[in-house]
Amino acid sequence: MNAFDDLMRHARDTAALGQVAGRLGWDQETMMPRGAAGQRSDEMAAMEGVLHARRTDPRIGDWLAAIDGETLDDAGRAQLREIRRSFERANKVPARLAAEIARVTSQAQGQWAEARAADDFAAFAPILREVLALRREEGAALSDGGDVYDALLDDYEPGAKAAELEAMFGALRPRLVALREAILDKPAPKGLEGTFDEGAQMKLTRQIAKVFGYDMSRGRVDKAVHPFSSGSGNDVRITTRTAPEDPFNCLYSTIHEVGHACYEQNIDQAYLLTPLGQGVSMGVHESQSRIYENQLGRSRAFTGWLFGQMRDAFGDIGVADEEAFYAAVNRVHNGFIRTESDEVQYNLHVLLRFDLERALISRALEVEDLEAAWNDRFAADFGFPVTRPSQGVLQDVHWSVGLFGYFPTYTLGNVYAGCLHAALRDAVPELDAQLARGELAQATGWLRDTVQQHGGLCTPRDLIARACGAEPSEKPLLEYLEAKFGALYGL
Amino acid sequence: MNAFDDLMRHARDTAALGQVAGRLGWDQETMMPRGAAGQRSDEMAAMEGVLHARRTDPRIGDWLAAIDGETLDDAGRAQLREIRRSFERANKVPARLAAEIARVTSQAQGQWAEARAADDFAAFAPILREVLALRREEGAALSDGGDVYDALLDDYEPGAKAAELEAMFGALRPRLVALREAILDKPAPKGLEGTFDEGAQMKLTRQIAKVFGYDMSRGRVDKAVHPFSSGSGNDVRITTRTAPEDPFNCLYSTIHEVGHACYEQNIDQAYLLTPLGQGVSMGVHESQSRIYENQLGRSRAFTGWLFGQMRDAFGDIGVADEEAFYAAVNRVHNGFIRTESDEVQYNLHVLLRFDLERALISRALEVEDLEAAWNDRFAADFGFPVTRPSQGVLQDVHWSVGLFGYFPTYTLGNVYAGCLHAALRDAVPELDAQLARGELAQATGWLRDTVQQHGGLCTPRDLIARACGAEPSEKPLLEYLEAKFGALYGL
Repeated sequence: MNAFDDLMRHARDTAALGQVAGRLGWDQETMMPRGAAGQRSDEMAAMEGVLHARRTDPRIGDWLAAIDGETLDDAGRAQLREIRRSFERANKVPARLAAEIARVTSQAQGQWAEARAADDFAAFAPILREVLALRREEGAALSDGGDVYDALLDDYEPGAKAAELEAMFGALRPRLVALREAILDKPAPKGLEGTFDEGAQMKLTRQIAKVFGYDMSRGRVDKAVHPFSSGSGNDVRITTRTAPEDPFNCLYSTIHEVGHACYEQNIDQAYLLTPLGQGVSMGVHESQSRIYENQLGRSRAFTGWLFGQMRDAFGDIGVADEEAFYAAVNRVHNGFIRTESDEVQYNLHVLLRFDLERALISRALEVEDLEAAWNDRFAADFGFPVTRPSQGVLQDVHWSVGLFGYFPTYTLGNVYAGCLHAALRDAVPELDAQLARGELAQATGWLRDTVQQHGGLCTPRDLIARACGAEPSEKPLLEYLEAKFGALYGL
Repeated sequence: MNAFDDLMRHARDTAALGQVAGRLGWDQETMMPRGAAGQRSDEMAAMEGVLHARRTDPRIGDWLAAIDGETLDDAGRAQLREIRRSFERANKVPARLAAEIARVTSQAQGQWAEARAADDFAAFAPILREVLALRREEGAALSDGGDVYDALLDDYEPGAKAAELEAMFGALRPRLVALREAILDKPAPKGLEGTFDEGAQMKLTRQIAKVFGYDMSRGRVDKAVHPFSSGSGNDVRITTRTAPEDPFNCLYSTIHEVGHACYEQNIDQAYLLTPLGQGVSMGVHESQSRIYENQLGRSRAFTGWLFGQMRDAFGDIGVADEEAFYAAVNRVHNGFIRTESDEVQYNLHVLLRFDLERALISRALEVEDLEAAWNDRFAADFGFPVTRPSQGVLQDVHWSVGLFGYFPTYTLGNVYAGCLHAALRDAVPELDAQLARGELAQATGWLRDTVQQHGGLCTPRDLIARACGAEPSEKPLLEYLEAKFGALYGL
């Protein structure tokens, strides 16, 4: 077993260094003085160089060849699977290409920000073309002659295939469009009113984070421009943001990030600082953040409890009772921006991007036609026109940094959350009574036991199938959304 | 010049990774959740492993051999000097010994903390013996047959020799003891009175940090248990602490750390993330922190201005006028603890440690006799007995973590500060008028131009000699102390 021990020692150090690099990223968004930006990018590049050298270390190949997998337990075999995956991936991409992608995407992110500020897609198109060409080349190198988009998708959702997602998403789209249209024919419920002290928002948000099981002794909550979760194991930090007129932004960003963070915190400590010691895929990660945020956090039962907390924290908040508060929390409204969208429309934003980015990768769509394609699709699904690229094709950073294949994991996460929610309802019949008392322990405990603790032990799809006792399907999500919003809007 | 470019590229990445490791240390003391401690030590160990491998990379030897130093400018030759120094040092110490020192000192630090809490030197003695033996072995490996203590000292103060320091310190000791005795025969001046809001202390401390030239756009001030400065170049952070009854603790800790931080911030940007891009020695570093804190920050002129700031921030502070405030700032009092000492007695604490640690290294003193030796020397120099080891031999962490050879750099820094202060007075005849208006720009500008900007370009002694136009000597420090405290106490 010597080769396995050597391999694991190497993998542990790599995982530890990955955590260090992640913490640098956290620092950059929360604590770093602004004048340190240039120096920081050199520091990050040096860390990336170290990590890349470790991931391609030829000794990994020797160790892998020397290990007899038959002698290992499930966890050992899963460690090997993850290490082999990472090693093969790293070695398939020529160093020249990896460096070029790093260089061009870093430049492209800046140009994207400028183009968005100037509302000028044409200014962004040339470098987007470069990013796309490089990622296509990388996908081809990774695909072993198979589908290039699938090879890219595999980075974020191991084992997923675009064709399977297409079938699932194809079933979602018409029913979400129909639900959206039916809702927006109805009068909009009242929103909150008032100004909400930002200190009180942060106090309440920390309290809610703990209610959802976030372990503050192994994490912390800070403010940042964009909410995110960072780190694995015993140091998992989240950020949120506050706006004086919109306390839901802070609260639900926090609950979402707490879902991500609890996943990382609750992974079996036996996997700490190993390849299994982090969330297994972006889709499973998003399933946790979304079920915390939506199926639990935006439920009638929980919002009833939250209404009381909000009144205690802020006094009169402009809605009279629990029902009105529930309606305000779940208001469906027209909007251009994915990240500001509601449960009903969110996935329509994602499906649009999924279809467009596959077309870009396969060359069915050229970059010069992207803005028009976006606007056409948006008008078709959302019923009103995009007026400015900053509200359309330029709204997300993802493509500028080369994240082709990432978007579908958002909706896959919602689909998984739908499946998990149905199974959770079966497992915990008293769920609503608990949520109405602000008690999340049994719900989050079930997610911990069935999903979170396993880290990277099973492949994503297997993990969800085992947790739910059924193959993943879009049906539970659709049924949940149609029932919830049908009742809310009297459809 | 290819080998030089390759060498410098390697050195830059190493410097960048060193900054990353330093930032982890900062995070640990300021932001890290307490439950992350175990994981963090694995992360730090992984970073140390990376850094050690880079410092001993055999390519460095090849590059050094291939470079013709004659073709380089001063900065290039200084870079080579620093790189060669670090490479040779790293290669002289066997990996086995380095790992053993890391393991034992980490354990010893814990045992020291427990022994100090229990006031039990005997509980600490066995592991101190181990640490001492290991560092002796390391010193022997580094010394090439020369003096072992000098080899250890060289880590902190390149080029310094214990025999030279002994002569300098020998001249200090009797006059400091005499000054101390004369002062403590006189009545003690009044101290501050009142409770000082900790938020107001932090606000004032940030304002004072800026007055001393600390660039907040490339730094930040946080609270921590121990004040420190961390980082080089464009990301240099400091910490301070507050106590409600003692605002001087916060203010003067801050000014001290600002001295360290400004040194790092003011190094020529051409040296950013290179071996020359950090303070050249501990002694020179301490000269900057001490001249900011004492010769400038505790001067009659500056405290006159500070008195007004304190009154504005806190109202009545229990002393009536500038003279009384100046006396309170500079109160000399009996005390056991080095870090709480005043300008007059501070160096007596250091000289005691310097003499004892040399005796330990040379085996003139055995660990079992250390406590008694400490207590005898303390009674001789300070005139009253040590009653508990936590107030004596167990008060400092340094020896537990193996820092033999570090202590004398504190006093060397004070000696250098004395020399620089004399030269600064010559260069800026209007200094007191400026300080009385809270204007530090010309004083700190002179230190930046003569000392700080050069980073590691010159050796420490040369740097101070050039800045002062004279060889370093203890005389200016003694003259300054005797004049200042003679006037304050009417001697």
